Amino acid sequence: MSPTDRFVRRRPEGDDRERLTCAECGFIAYENPKVVVGSVVGIEGKVLLCRRAIEPRRGFWTIPAGYLEMDETVSEGAVREAWEEARARILPEGVLAVYSVARLGQVQVIFRARLAEPGFSPGPESLDVRAFAWEEIPWDEIAFPTVRWALHAWREHPAGPLPPAYLNPIEDMRGVAPLPGG
Amino acid sequence: MSPTDRFVRRRPEGDDRERLTCAECGFIAYENPKVVVGSVVGIEGKVLLCRRAIEPRRGFWTIPAGYLEMDETVSEGAVREAWEEARARILPEGVLAVYSVARLGQVQVIFRARLAEPGFSPGPESLDVRAFAWEEIPWDEIAFPTVRWALHAWREHPAGPLPPAYLNPIEDMRGVAPLPGG
Repeated sequence: MSPTDRFVRRRPEGDDRERLTCAECGFIAYENPKVVVGSVVGIEGKVLLCRRAIEPRRGFWTIPAGYLEMDETVSEGAVREAWEEARARILPEGVLAVYSVARLGQVQVIFRARLAEPGFSPGPESLDVRAFAWEEIPWDEIAFPTVRWALHAWREHPAGPLPPAYLNPIEDMRGVAPLPGG
Repeated sequence: MSPTDRFVRRRPEGDDRERLTCAECGFIAYENPKVVVGSVVGIEGKVLLCRRAIEPRRGFWTIPAGYLEMDETVSEGAVREAWEEARARILPEGVLAVYSVARLGQVQVIFRARLAEPGFSPGPESLDVRAFAWEEIPWDEIAFPTVRWALHAWREHPAGPLPPAYLNPIEDMRGVAPLPGG
């Protein structure tokens, strides 16, 4: 019996919604939104982007970001992802945005960050890493809507005091718009 | 075979850490931090607290907060929890804080909110719901450190423009301090 066959949707007693439950032993696999942590890294007025070496959106550009692990704080996760994807040692300055992507069951906590030491290069999940001036950003090749939102938020507050954390823009309050071409 | 017996910790090929894996079928139950959403609700200068009817910390006071569900945005989750726990219709104004509780694998997104319509009363998970003036807050009976942190953050910005989102205070940067008496 494959896991797909064994797990069924069933409402546990006292709960108000269906949960993925093992039909054999009753184990409930609670599905909760996952936390993505990432950062807009400013480098002398430019912004660090990574060209994805992996699906989804291979070949498209993104900010360093990924899933938070169990034993991490959000800041620690953002630092780890910047190292893994861009071989950049970053210093998170504060929270720039908290985005909800209900389509995927994600909450994205995006920091504004700067380099703690000079230098960056592609990690194993990136084809390329570059610092782009604002007018150089390849908007047609940005991987995800939240990356575009985060870049625009950063553009309004690239340095100085951090603003109140941005939430989803009006154009997609719930994070349910499909990817362009997807 | 119980689920506890069947699931073992094993490092999947290409991964860099151990994951909970079904020894029979190879199903990987990824464990990720969960998102808690909550709100400090200001009511004419007072703050809304709920006395917990459930464990952990039954009988202690907390802000309305709970686990985000799959199909929700963080704002929607905060609104739902305020209704479930305090029968309050709230309007989230913005993000007050993003706390990491590495001890529990939690990220807490805390809003500053106000009532969208008057009135509140205990929901099924609360013994009591009250609006406390600052000097009335029962500090010795606060359920969790993050509730204390959020109340102090709110105290500094109870109205007007929201501040940059607070992160964990210096006293517990990773959210690993045990509960008092626990």
